[in-house]
Amino acid sequence: MADYAGLWTDSRYFEQAERELTGTGIELQRLRVAHTPEHLSWLTEHLQTGQCLACSGEMLSRNAAQQLQDSLQAKGIHTDFRTDLPGWVWKQRPALPTAAIVEHPEAFACAHRGDRLQALRITMQQAGASHHLLSSLDDIAWITQLRGGDIEYNPVFLAHLLVGPDSIQLFIDPAKLSDTDLLDALRADGLVIRPYEAIDEALISLSRDTRLLFDPERICMSLALRIPDAVQQIEAPNPSTAMKARKSPCELDHWREVMRCDGAALVRAFRQIDDGVRAGKTLTELDVDEIVTRERRRESNFVGPSFATIAGYAGNAALPHYQALPEHPTQLQPHGLLLVDSGGQYQGGTTDITRVWSLGPLTDQERLDYTVVLQGMIALSRAHFPSGASGPQLDALERAPIWAEQADYGHGTGHGVGYFLNVHEGPHGIRPPSSGGTLVPLQTGMVVSIEPGLYRPGQHGIRHENLVVVSDNGSSEFGQFLAFETLSLCPFDTRALQNERFSATERNWLNTYHARVFEVLAPRLQAADRSWLEARCAPLSP
Amino acid sequence: MADYAGLWTDSRYFEQAERELTGTGIELQRLRVAHTPEHLSWLTEHLQTGQCLACSGEMLSRNAAQQLQDSLQAKGIHTDFRTDLPGWVWKQRPALPTAAIVEHPEAFACAHRGDRLQALRITMQQAGASHHLLSSLDDIAWITQLRGGDIEYNPVFLAHLLVGPDSIQLFIDPAKLSDTDLLDALRADGLVIRPYEAIDEALISLSRDTRLLFDPERICMSLALRIPDAVQQIEAPNPSTAMKARKSPCELDHWREVMRCDGAALVRAFRQIDDGVRAGKTLTELDVDEIVTRERRRESNFVGPSFATIAGYAGNAALPHYQALPEHPTQLQPHGLLLVDSGGQYQGGTTDITRVWSLGPLTDQERLDYTVVLQGMIALSRAHFPSGASGPQLDALERAPIWAEQADYGHGTGHGVGYFLNVHEGPHGIRPPSSGGTLVPLQTGMVVSIEPGLYRPGQHGIRHENLVVVSDNGSSEFGQFLAFETLSLCPFDTRALQNERFSATERNWLNTYHARVFEVLAPRLQAADRSWLEARCAPLSP
Repeated sequence: MADYAGLWTDSRYFEQAERELTGTGIELQRLRVAHTPEHLSWLTEHLQTGQCLACSGEMLSRNAAQQLQDSLQAKGIHTDFRTDLPGWVWKQRPALPTAAIVEHPEAFACAHRGDRLQALRITMQQAGASHHLLSSLDDIAWITQLRGGDIEYNPVFLAHLLVGPDSIQLFIDPAKLSDTDLLDALRADGLVIRPYEAIDEALISLSRDTRLLFDPERICMSLALRIPDAVQQIEAPNPSTAMKARKSPCELDHWREVMRCDGAALVRAFRQIDDGVRAGKTLTELDVDEIVTRERRRESNFVGPSFATIAGYAGNAALPHYQALPEHPTQLQPHGLLLVDSGGQYQGGTTDITRVWSLGPLTDQERLDYTVVLQGMIALSRAHFPSGASGPQLDALERAPIWAEQADYGHGTGHGVGYFLNVHEGPHGIRPPSSGGTLVPLQTGMVVSIEPGLYRPGQHGIRHENLVVVSDNGSSEFGQFLAFETLSLCPFDTRALQNERFSATERNWLNTYHARVFEVLAPRLQAADRSWLEARCAPLSP
Repeated sequence: MADYAGLWTDSRYFEQAERELTGTGIELQRLRVAHTPEHLSWLTEHLQTGQCLACSGEMLSRNAAQQLQDSLQAKGIHTDFRTDLPGWVWKQRPALPTAAIVEHPEAFACAHRGDRLQALRITMQQAGASHHLLSSLDDIAWITQLRGGDIEYNPVFLAHLLVGPDSIQLFIDPAKLSDTDLLDALRADGLVIRPYEAIDEALISLSRDTRLLFDPERICMSLALRIPDAVQQIEAPNPSTAMKARKSPCELDHWREVMRCDGAALVRAFRQIDDGVRAGKTLTELDVDEIVTRERRRESNFVGPSFATIAGYAGNAALPHYQALPEHPTQLQPHGLLLVDSGGQYQGGTTDITRVWSLGPLTDQERLDYTVVLQGMIALSRAHFPSGASGPQLDALERAPIWAEQADYGHGTGHGVGYFLNVHEGPHGIRPPSSGGTLVPLQTGMVVSIEPGLYRPGQHGIRHENLVVVSDNGSSEFGQFLAFETLSLCPFDTRALQNERFSATERNWLNTYHARVFEVLAPRLQAADRSWLEARCAPLSP
């Protein structure tokens, strides 16, 4: 405003924002409730009737911009989504990224591009649409069977896609795609490559009998403003979001092989760390990241990490999204717990796994917390549930053993995972039901994480995480039932466990899992790693 | 319509409706999804622009009428909520009920009427209201500390209540209230008794500076239409709904004593039935109802049943809301399972309990089903959960053991219960989360049923039901935690149990519960009943 500047952010960024805003004259406005647009009520309170709010239409989804517009309109305040004021003054703005675009080979993609496009066109027809506009990068990468490197950790590329009845226009920086064979293949499938910016013109020139399908949550306001008034707009989730959420048997086969590679890499890495600390070697949280990533790189078809590794020792692990700072590397000690949350992008799947390792003597509290979180993970991992059940409906199964110790965790229990795509990729997920929240049913082929936690600030943080796939569990007179098949292959640290708290059922689950991990990974390991794994996978007795 | 008549109803009434509509020319329209107003889309499809739909404004809540109006208005169809067409032709319409109104004695009500009114006025002030209109009978009975008998099983009376800053007008048939002492007491608390019909006039004559609070879900459209346009309307849930949902320690003390009475009555009743069937006596489902109600009547402060007893033998119990027909009484056999769901209204609380009895040899399926449903009940009964958690968040804990056997039940897991009021009384409850559904947090003092089931049509039906109260379970660095205290006192039939399926935890829970039931009820019973109870409460060994 003429006489005020404020930055609204949530608790994850309070500390950083306070530090970075000092002396700028910008006031930090602390959001109290996550995902609640408190700035909207601030704006309606502080702006006057007749004033105008400018906001770049590229920064907000159509729905978010609409909500802003509606709430201000009620008080007679105008909005301008066409004027990008920060752009006027930001002279050194970095250019858009330009990583190369490559093909996701058919052998891994388990599909022909043409078949996917045909399936997409059928859903468009069912929705009564002649055209379909997409800006969501995971959807575009999946539909086109292309991958890129514009966003760290996510193998996607900046693009828009306009699917028409006869042609498909892919809007990208053409410099990213120079492979002539790939260009020929795309052309053969009916794809036309156009410059990234040409999307504006393509929308403006849509004919008046167009019926355009788009997801108002996943296109930005500036694109929505380009759509001619005469075009009929069909608002719906992108059909590809639901299509790619259910992985095919061929994709799951690749993913299971990826899990074997990833598991072997993790065993080699964790053995080095475990032995190293116990042998008195100086190792920091940064070394952990380096060792884990180095071992993953040795596996075939590894592309890169799927997110920034979280390696937190002792109290550092109590921050669920902790990042070790290169300036202050925390050194691992031969006692307490080390949490490692890491993952890899492979051509045949994406991994995301958290294990917590005992580096030596533990407190009773550490062992108790380690145990109840594992009880939560086991309870959900072995759950059966009817077709139609959603993640929010199951969330409490995971929390019950943790609640029983008067503890809880502030994050969701699980997120959907893409196939050599984004490590967080819905529409499904497992979290507490929220008032008015949508409940996406879990369906066979959906991959989701199970990751309960327990964090004691200043002391330690526990999180156990596996990826699982929803699988058919047979039918009865009550309908179809589903269950989870655990995909991740890596032992839990039974040295941290209060075995006596485990029920026979829990012990059986863990012993069965460990037997499978050893059987599958042992043939891929050299002797030292194999015998370390054997000790980790030794069955628990009652 | 001029050339069509249809009746929309859900699956519970398909059979009865088909029978009763035969030959009437009224077509049965089967609702597919419960609680979904499919008739609205039918109306918008079949009515023409410019036509007018008449619907008695007394038959629909303000919100339901509004929804009807909105959906028809979009097509240019008018609505008339002032014309009661059925009333024109229904000549033999029964008069409104006229049961006497009595006081809920202060000793049982645990409150002074004046204090309740004051608390209500404070919440009205907080909401910015000068007046408050109520038509919901449970709210009015609770606020006025009066009880009636106009609705079978529910101790309420037909009334409207208009709370103003100085006076409180209670609109009832004055003939129902003849006790001059009670009339004096009400007058002393500022209550003015006015004829039931005078509510219309009272609303019409509200002054233009009135700020009227009402719950649009709980007043009918015809009342809403009487409110002058100049009156400011404040739409919110009735404050008394939340106030009465949390029972006071004094109310809970009375309720616990009621549970002792109810439990003793049930033991006497079930002993007669159990011994009778085993001794070859001829007993029908109707006899079960009679015996249970007769034994309850022997207890002090019993007022009447809290709902129509469901006594279902074998396959009859597979209908969750089965009612034995006097014309076809099913005779109990010395094998199989008998389900008895019954409850009582007492001055000091309302009961609702379901037990399933083994009358002799059982099939493996009967025993398995009995066991898994009990595992579900135990899992939820012993759950701890953080303050803020809602029933829908916990629902799966109850279902998980039943899902594990590829079974499920089609009804909710629990409903709120009134204190000597309606046996179904929210706002809280335990059921699967529904998309867009509200999530009412469970709070200390809320009483709720826990009643999982499993129904195999033609074979048997299982339901185990207790009433529990939400209680404080201490605090930790993660906030306040809550748990359930089981209020109902009556043994489960361990003869029907597959003991070997029970975990140590489950066995402990049941043994502890049975020890408490025996300890509390035994002193109230004669020798024969006591030794029957002792056998039922005998601890299970591993």
